Amino acid sequence: MLPSDDRTWENNDVTRRRENSERLEAAAKLVVPGGVYGHGALTTRAHPRFFESGTGAHVTDVDGNELIDFMCGYGPNLLGMGHPRVEAAAERQRRKGDCFSGPTARWVELAEALVERIGHADWAMFTKNGTDATTLCTTIARAATGRRKILVARGAYHGAAPWCTPSDAGVPAEDRAHLLHYRYNDLESVAEAVARAGDDLAGIMVSPFRHDTFVDQELPTTEFARGLRRACDRAGAVLMIDEVRAGLRLARGGSWERLSVDPDLSAWGKALGNGYAISAVVGREDLRDAARRVYATGSFWYGGVAMAAACETLAVADEIGLPEMLTATGQQFRAGLEELATANGFSLRQTGPPQLPMVLFEGDTDFSLGKFFTGDAIDRGVYMHPYHNMFLSAAHTPAIVAEALERLSGSFESLRRYVDAAGPEGSR
Amino acid sequence: MLPSDDRTWENNDVTRRRENSERLEAAAKLVVPGGVYGHGALTTRAHPRFFESGTGAHVTDVDGNELIDFMCGYGPNLLGMGHPRVEAAAERQRRKGDCFSGPTARWVELAEALVERIGHADWAMFTKNGTDATTLCTTIARAATGRRKILVARGAYHGAAPWCTPSDAGVPAEDRAHLLHYRYNDLESVAEAVARAGDDLAGIMVSPFRHDTFVDQELPTTEFARGLRRACDRAGAVLMIDEVRAGLRLARGGSWERLSVDPDLSAWGKALGNGYAISAVVGREDLRDAARRVYATGSFWYGGVAMAAACETLAVADEIGLPEMLTATGQQFRAGLEELATANGFSLRQTGPPQLPMVLFEGDTDFSLGKFFTGDAIDRGVYMHPYHNMFLSAAHTPAIVAEALERLSGSFESLRRYVDAAGPEGSR
Repeated sequence: MLPSDDRTWENNDVTRRRENSERLEAAAKLVVPGGVYGHGALTTRAHPRFFESGTGAHVTDVDGNELIDFMCGYGPNLLGMGHPRVEAAAERQRRKGDCFSGPTARWVELAEALVERIGHADWAMFTKNGTDATTLCTTIARAATGRRKILVARGAYHGAAPWCTPSDAGVPAEDRAHLLHYRYNDLESVAEAVARAGDDLAGIMVSPFRHDTFVDQELPTTEFARGLRRACDRAGAVLMIDEVRAGLRLARGGSWERLSVDPDLSAWGKALGNGYAISAVVGREDLRDAARRVYATGSFWYGGVAMAAACETLAVADEIGLPEMLTATGQQFRAGLEELATANGFSLRQTGPPQLPMVLFEGDTDFSLGKFFTGDAIDRGVYMHPYHNMFLSAAHTPAIVAEALERLSGSFESLRRYVDAAGPEGSR
Repeated sequence: MLPSDDRTWENNDVTRRRENSERLEAAAKLVVPGGVYGHGALTTRAHPRFFESGTGAHVTDVDGNELIDFMCGYGPNLLGMGHPRVEAAAERQRRKGDCFSGPTARWVELAEALVERIGHADWAMFTKNGTDATTLCTTIARAATGRRKILVARGAYHGAAPWCTPSDAGVPAEDRAHLLHYRYNDLESVAEAVARAGDDLAGIMVSPFRHDTFVDQELPTTEFARGLRRACDRAGAVLMIDEVRAGLRLARGGSWERLSVDPDLSAWGKALGNGYAISAVVGREDLRDAARRVYATGSFWYGGVAMAAACETLAVADEIGLPEMLTATGQQFRAGLEELATANGFSLRQTGPPQLPMVLFEGDTDFSLGKFFTGDAIDRGVYMHPYHNMFLSAAHTPAIVAEALERLSGSFESLRRYVDAAGPEGSR
């Protein structure tokens, strides 16, 4: 086994400037617990912590290192950073005003746009964080059914509120008292959890595909999706799809429409405003009254600018045929990575939909290969993640993907040299 | 008693255009549960539901009615809508980029600015909604103490998450299992709640003054504030001030610094970015480690634009001496209202700090006077609230406040005529 030291990548033959990043990180540690917290801290020492600018598929860190960005802000960058049409639409609203004591006309326009494009959506509600949207789904499901139990897949991420955060620091057990778990793509485990819920099953939450950190992604089987729908129908419970991470990249409407499975509620976020802070819940007619009874609000939830950005994001996505476009460049990226890995004697695990690439090295249980590889890739100007799914945007053109692969060719070679130098125990 | 019909104000002698507002509300009802939900729906039928534009202290509804706005978006508008310096700072960051896979340098700058100005702040964390900030406070308090009970004042609003939402629709009892209540300014009730918490008291949350909807506002007595501090110190519990609604309007730093009472944590939001979506938690050194252990994140929480806006908002607020400025115009507004009310034979209850005006009519238990008055005021171009505290911004100049009072003179006369026409039972 190679050591899983975050700094191994520094043994490569490329260097980049890191002074400003390190200086800012030290300054941050004085005034922010841990310096940087949250998903941006899930990366390795190789990853720049602070960003200076970005446009399209490129970001530049505070040391002036330009990177082809395969994280897209963990999802929000759907069309390319600073997309001209989205920015123009936001600017038009901004000149009028953003944060009033009630909504603007964009509220109606965006709700109409979501209702039009998502099969199961008869209405929409707007929130700010993805967590707001998933939490609101559970509250509506409980209000509608008068029941309490919510089923989620073991290991799935549905946000950072006490009921769903992956950490238990500061979270009393009661916040999760009505949470039951099943295994993704395992209807038997669903049936067991449904049985445990008894007559108290409010709903089942599920991601459109399994996109847990650290492990292979997994597409849902049609049988699994339909089985969840059937389980909810039988129990009079609410099926909820958490589209926050994957929504809009997989399909124009709901991600499970291709499986002919409609949920009762779905939560959307991240990509919806192409970087502007907005999330949403949409739902079926029979849940409208429960949704109306729930108290949901936030200081900035009427903000017209993010809604204007979202309306334009959806319009642009439709014009360019976004899911198909991302599928094509995702397949190009996947095939190119596969070829480079093979040429250098590595075996990759590339799983899930190509629009949200997940790249793990076969047998790399401590992610030492992934950490060295992504560290080296960042040195060569490609921002990748060693154990979290990545994201493509419409700005990731075939030429940019080809350029990224060209740079990554050096990273595979560098990894080969590193593994070979580590001797027999280091080989895979 | 006058009937509490929301439409009574229509008997006044002013009319305004409402067609677009009604058309949009009807359209919204088709695609959003209830049409408009949240705090914007707390108003009466007289209030315009949809806004077109705003600048400074003025907003214009979708029918072109311009209003002097005393709600300020329920708080966010601190310096005036579209404040040129805040917008310029936001635009500079926007050109570089907003939503990256990690923070920008604004993260450090804003944390430093908060630590500099707030006495008890040794560090800061950034969130998006006010609810995120209050919830994070409770999680940090629990992580730090390893205990569970949180005390809040009966009737206080701390956000819309399941643990604190004013509605219980869809909220299992377990979400509030560790919540205990005291009465504001009543140390005996605090002592009782502390006793009930036993050795499980994680912390006490308190608003800088009592600003509950529907009732008189109440400033904290020094004895009460110090008593809470003492209670926390004795129990080894965490004192948390929820500054989301009032923060920055009452003082440059923490609102209780004038009482020489420092909390351990405080939650900030609304006004922090002058309308840009950002909130924050700040805290003392001894809670840094607990804050670091809590998992807190959101898709848009690194957004640099709102942080740039917040940095500039704080700088402008300091240059103009914001709390003093708002106090002066608040006193002008209060005195003018008092004079007009008296001249027309009404008695007002104006309570709390003048920066956040609360105006109730004496004996108006069903708010019928308040509803008629604010409905008439809106017809005359002054946006006021019948039973929620209002907000002043730096754009509410003495001249604008005088103009508002001039218009409201008509509303008091209109209310007088209405009450007199209602006959003896209608008199107050």
